[in-house]
Amino acid sequence: MFENIFDNVRRSHPLVHCITNYVTVNDCANILLAAGAAPIMADDIGEVQEITAICNALAINIGTLNARTINSMLEAGKEANNLCHPVILDPVGAGASALRTDTAFKLINEVRFTVIRGNISEIKTIAKGKGTTRGVDADVSDAVTEANLSDAVRFVKEVSRQKNAVIAVTGAIDIVADAEKAYIIRNGHPMMSRVTGTGCMLSVLTAAYCGANTNEPLGAAAASVAAMGLCGEIAYKKTLEVNGGTGTFRMMLIDAMSGLDSDTFRSGINVEIL
Amino acid sequence: MFENIFDNVRRSHPLVHCITNYVTVNDCANILLAAGAAPIMADDIGEVQEITAICNALAINIGTLNARTINSMLEAGKEANNLCHPVILDPVGAGASALRTDTAFKLINEVRFTVIRGNISEIKTIAKGKGTTRGVDADVSDAVTEANLSDAVRFVKEVSRQKNAVIAVTGAIDIVADAEKAYIIRNGHPMMSRVTGTGCMLSVLTAAYCGANTNEPLGAAAASVAAMGLCGEIAYKKTLEVNGGTGTFRMMLIDAMSGLDSDTFRSGINVEIL
Amino acid sequence: MFENIFDNVRRSHPLVHCITNYVTVNDCANILLAAGAAPIMADDIGEVQEITAICNALAINIGTLNARTINSMLEAGKEANNLCHPVILDPVGAGASALRTDTAFKLINEVRFTVIRGNISEIKTIAKGKGTTRGVDADVSDAVTEANLSDAVRFVKEVSRQKNAVIAVTGAIDIVADAEKAYIIRNGHPMMSRVTGTGCMLSVLTAAYCGANTNEPLGAAAASVAAMGLCGEIAYKKTLEVNGGTGTFRMMLIDAMSGLDSDTFRSGINVEIL
Repeated sequence: MFENIFDNVRRSHPLVHCITNYVTVNDCANILLAAGAAPIMADDIGEVQEITAICNALAINIGTLNARTINSMLEAGKEANNLCHPVILDPVGAGASALRTDTAFKLINEVRFTVIRGNISEIKTIAKGKGTTRGVDADVSDAVTEANLSDAVRFVKEVSRQKNAVIAVTGAIDIVADAEKAYIIRNGHPMMSRVTGTGCMLSVLTAAYCGANTNEPLGAAAASVAAMGLCGEIAYKKTLEVNGGTGTFRMMLIDAMSGLDSDTFRSGINVEIL
Repeated sequence: MFENIFDNVRRSHPLVHCITNYVTVNDCANILLAAGAAPIMADDIGEVQEITAICNALAINIGTLNARTINSMLEAGKEANNLCHPVILDPVGAGASALRTDTAFKLINEVRFTVIRGNISEIKTIAKGKGTTRGVDADVSDAVTEANLSDAVRFVKEVSRQKNAVIAVTGAIDIVADAEKAYIIRNGHPMMSRVTGTGCMLSVLTAAYCGANTNEPLGAAAASVAAMGLCGEIAYKKTLEVNGGTGTFRMMLIDAMSGLDSDTFRSGINVEIL
Repeated sequence: MFENIFDNVRRSHPLVHCITNYVTVNDCANILLAAGAAPIMADDIGEVQEITAICNALAINIGTLNARTINSMLEAGKEANNLCHPVILDPVGAGASALRTDTAFKLINEVRFTVIRGNISEIKTIAKGKGTTRGVDADVSDAVTEANLSDAVRFVKEVSRQKNAVIAVTGAIDIVADAEKAYIIRNGHPMMSRVTGTGCMLSVLTAAYCGANTNEPLGAAAASVAAMGLCGEIAYKKTLEVNGGTGTFRMMLIDAMSGLDSDTFRSGINVEIL
């Protein structure tokens, strides 16, 4: 199944409308192109409806949000809902400020999200209405580990039921779940947290995967998480080979995505159902 | 002639005022520095006139435009006109939304552009007042090919006459023309379309070339298109050598521009008059 | 002393709130992560106070400033002052437009800065209330050289006394001084001026160093300047080894920072007291 999902992205070149932060926006565009999809960034209220209408999916990321872009996110989200396009939310830093937490809630209340993807602290904030994050990183005390995994899965399924969206919690171990079913993904590498934007890139990639596989949002989200993690592993190996640091790793991550083929994807992903 | 144009850029270090999108702005700054020019990005209405006044050229790019920056584009453009500085327009995504199409028209009506550079779909939109683009990429049915080349050249010359600006249409085959004369450029590599920003980078480079060669806008625009395409070829070869992907290619493109010398430029460009 | 300062950054992982320009913001985030610190970018007036409160330091950079972000800079700066967090100012392009010069003055009048870091032209503008910059680069006639070094040091100490902040002037020779004491730093490489953002990256790094060493702002600023310069030297050597250009150099700069250890730092920095 995952292999079909992967192939559909390369086959259909989904166009993804991204309303995202200005920190990692270039990486988001390049990861989409590397994956065989295409990006368009547009955040003015005067064009977001039209831009969303010509796209296959919408990705909303609240990093560096401001009063102007929040309205655009709401407008674009509603239009994508009207057109039944997949809509992905990345609640960057929810819990770090009232503005981010409130905006995440406002978006979830007014827009139907296909997938919500964040770190465990952000997802806890969304579930509980408050939370603690260390800026835009997860609080260490929240981390998903092998020891608390079944509790974490139960929690993620419950959030999915509550929010009526696939929930993707990424970290050392990733959980992608709807109310009934959870995928546990053990791909990735710790160096991914030493470059900015790996989470943001994953969110737009998830949008591309959902846009190319509109009938399987859970599978598409899980496949995108596994693909990104696998590229992190490949990039880390290549970085070691050239004795590189985090700058090289960032470049190798895009390289890995642009070179990823069906066979490498199928044999490299580590996905378990729980 | 082209070699002189190239040398003038390295000799005079033109300063380019860029009002450009936040997706590829870093690449735009780095390609200018690599080419021997220098960037300054400024988009607040409170300073665009002054900033334009200290520069040698102005590049306006409507990707991620918004109500605030549109006014700044108009102000900066008019001031650059007053000072007889070259002004370049990159109508990113004209045809993808009414806001972008209307803004491109408003700019063309109120500012005298030295060069308008876009993909064929964007230029058709500008010529006809409407068009179809696939987001920010050209519509496949619009592509310039060897088969339709002479028709395309006629069209581009006609647009140049209509808009009173050099028109640069870039794609697999590039056409740079004024009303009388067209250069056909066959440099470049398809991988350039698999990283974001190659078009945006070219537009600011065109501004630098025009800023260093104010008497020859047509030649300067053609030389910049050829230089960028040649760097794409060089970058692709180097990327292959290290078995890299699109991340490596992006870096190698900046490398190629920073290492480009007169001899390599002269012997590598493929420019024909039609 | 400098070694302790360096180690404290890696040990305490300071979180840095950055209100910075959209040109080099990604590089700023990645250099912080490479250095063992962490970034959070937030510029909306509705959240800057809260974000600053959870951070260890604040970096304000006026490149691509606008009316909206200027207010956020002021609010964040005042809150950081209330909380006794280190606050760093990078007056990018002060002297290039009245808006930038006035904003730099307004910030200095209303916020108490721990460190002000800029090129010599920007610092002269701040000292004298007017100045000449070539866009965002220093005016050649202002350059600090071995010949005018003692005069320059006297000037920088005087600016420090006037502004009640550590002043860091970077260029071919760097001067970091308070009213009493000056460090002269002879690290770095000219290629650092051929990629965008090395100054911006240094400013957020200085914020991280100050955040991890709140009792020694002068030493922390000097250490950050030396660390960045040393990384420039290392990056240049590695770039030569692979026959790379400015694109490679930019990546190697991040690599060098991510790989920098105590021993390399201690033996590589070239700092003199004057």
